[in-house]
Amino acid sequence: MSYERENIRQMSGYVSGEQPSADDTIKLNTNENPYPPSPKVDEILKSINIDALRRYPPATANRFRDLAAELHQLSRENVIATRGGDELLRLVITTFVDPGEKIGMTAPTYSLYPVLAQIQACPTVSLPLKDDWSLPDDFATQMNEQNVKLTLLVNPHAPSGSLIPLEQLTQLADELDSLLLLDEAYIDFVDHDYETSRLALAYDNVIILRTLSKGYSLAGLRFGYGLASPSLIEPMMNKTRDSYNLDLISQQIAEAAIEDQAHARTSWQQVIDERERLRNALQAMGFESPMSQTNFLLVTVPKTSPDAFSIYQKLKERHILIRYFDADGLADKLRITVGTPEENQKLEAALSELLS
Amino acid sequence: MSYERENIRQMSGYVSGEQPSADDTIKLNTNENPYPPSPKVDEILKSINIDALRRYPPATANRFRDLAAELHQLSRENVIATRGGDELLRLVITTFVDPGEKIGMTAPTYSLYPVLAQIQACPTVSLPLKDDWSLPDDFATQMNEQNVKLTLLVNPHAPSGSLIPLEQLTQLADELDSLLLLDEAYIDFVDHDYETSRLALAYDNVIILRTLSKGYSLAGLRFGYGLASPSLIEPMMNKTRDSYNLDLISQQIAEAAIEDQAHARTSWQQVIDERERLRNALQAMGFESPMSQTNFLLVTVPKTSPDAFSIYQKLKERHILIRYFDADGLADKLRITVGTPEENQKLEAALSELLS
Repeated sequence: MSYERENIRQMSGYVSGEQPSADDTIKLNTNENPYPPSPKVDEILKSINIDALRRYPPATANRFRDLAAELHQLSRENVIATRGGDELLRLVITTFVDPGEKIGMTAPTYSLYPVLAQIQACPTVSLPLKDDWSLPDDFATQMNEQNVKLTLLVNPHAPSGSLIPLEQLTQLADELDSLLLLDEAYIDFVDHDYETSRLALAYDNVIILRTLSKGYSLAGLRFGYGLASPSLIEPMMNKTRDSYNLDLISQQIAEAAIEDQAHARTSWQQVIDERERLRNALQAMGFESPMSQTNFLLVTVPKTSPDAFSIYQKLKERHILIRYFDADGLADKLRITVGTPEENQKLEAALSELLS
Repeated sequence: MSYERENIRQMSGYVSGEQPSADDTIKLNTNENPYPPSPKVDEILKSINIDALRRYPPATANRFRDLAAELHQLSRENVIATRGGDELLRLVITTFVDPGEKIGMTAPTYSLYPVLAQIQACPTVSLPLKDDWSLPDDFATQMNEQNVKLTLLVNPHAPSGSLIPLEQLTQLADELDSLLLLDEAYIDFVDHDYETSRLALAYDNVIILRTLSKGYSLAGLRFGYGLASPSLIEPMMNKTRDSYNLDLISQQIAEAAIEDQAHARTSWQQVIDERERLRNALQAMGFESPMSQTNFLLVTVPKTSPDAFSIYQKLKERHILIRYFDADGLADKLRITVGTPEENQKLEAALSELLS
């Protein structure tokens, strides 16, 4: 017999991007930062006294919360530290959305969202983006009419890289009856001043998700955080969070990384510059790509070339991994993480060959 | 307005043991191992190349799963690696227990269990232990009559330190209609051959929880694992678990720690020896204490001495932390973690003074 709950039995899990087996693989498929984390991370790692691991870690990660609060000009009570952005997404659903209540999102969106909704036995309301990847004009109205309890928006959007204007976010926070979670995993790669943390002060229905995975080159660490009003942070901190959700080492590393803003910002600018160069190069080869405010590009394969899935496969044979989505509106497209200049040039050379 | 779900709004969170502010505190309140982790942990920590942190970690922790499987003579498919035992408890509930279904446990038990049940909106069925801390004879019958879906047993039991005989566990697995989770956080301190992992092979309703927090001196790392039939492991691995639940560093440290069985076993024997010495010393002072198979003792305060809470408070003033539970059947008792011989002797001296 199966002991699984019916909603779990019926669901499929999340499928994460491939991890290459060959060491020489150029990995442009899971939006990792191509530059290493801060050297302060190394110093901390080498200085840890393992005897401290005997004891439980700081339960609430207050030192990290204070550093994040300072960075965003908020208070500790506006911050929760989590095991990657994933834990925050789970906590928001567990704390605020009853089984059977609706979770709203766009199509396409981060493919983890429907999986998390299924775990909580929540139906999803999925509204297609416009052709230019912007939100439909009646997005908030539709979400409200459908009684959505939580709206999840990736901003800048994945897989398109497009950014929602700040004024539109304010309007959404005003108009939506639901909680609004802004998943800002890629926000560090926006090429102009753009800071949403004021929304966490001004609105009691907005939760901002940030992660150290991309901007701070620490995908392997699993560390993220949420910004919101204390009324939203408090129940996640004190009720639904696993008691010691963050180990001692990752807390110390995360503190060192977020303190070294100069190092992180240098890598962001390098990625932004290289993103523009790569986008121009790919467009010159016929791969249309909208402006991206992330560390990846969504390119449309030229009609005259092999189809998107073939290109994905042929690149993989050459040990270059990019992402293909077998999904509505994405079948003729490929998502390419911005790598180092050297990695990107190898990609360009391989694409040239495939197209010739 | 409050956005919290009604069950969350009504609950209180788990309260973990105090973390001392003073450096000279003798910390005998949260059952940490008094001896340091394996020196291999230090070697691994110092050898980590931080550039590897750029990338996502191994998603399924297969190397650790293989090592744990080898240790328990099981297969990888019988093992799930989790962020401490806490994550496994949460996953078992999320995967197998619908909101409204009942979760069974003993009274007293680990105070986290009712909290986890409330998060999933599950009622609890709590059966009092007998005076000698053993299970009531009709435990399985009562759980079945109440339609319990999941039974949680701490074994060896906390806070009493008592162990359920192997034959009784087999009988429970046979008789219970529910899933049976054996929380073996303290099993490494049992003073004789006692291994329950065969139950994970023989029964499709048994889940065994293990942790590196106590036996491997790694409470700060947050690493545990579950042993069960593949039919129970698979949905937790592939559906309900956060996609990358374990960071790269903690996986490597956990692998090193579990491989160094010689180091861990030495600390277990030291704790066992010291536990017996401390128990005899406390009994000589009038503190009755049953045999313990864990790294702590539950002592009853002599009727002629100050009450248990006063002793707890007076020790705290002297920077010695132990645990007092304001709960049925525990109000005249104190739980004392077995420390190093030096720490325990300081405790004995302080108790002597308080009683004189």
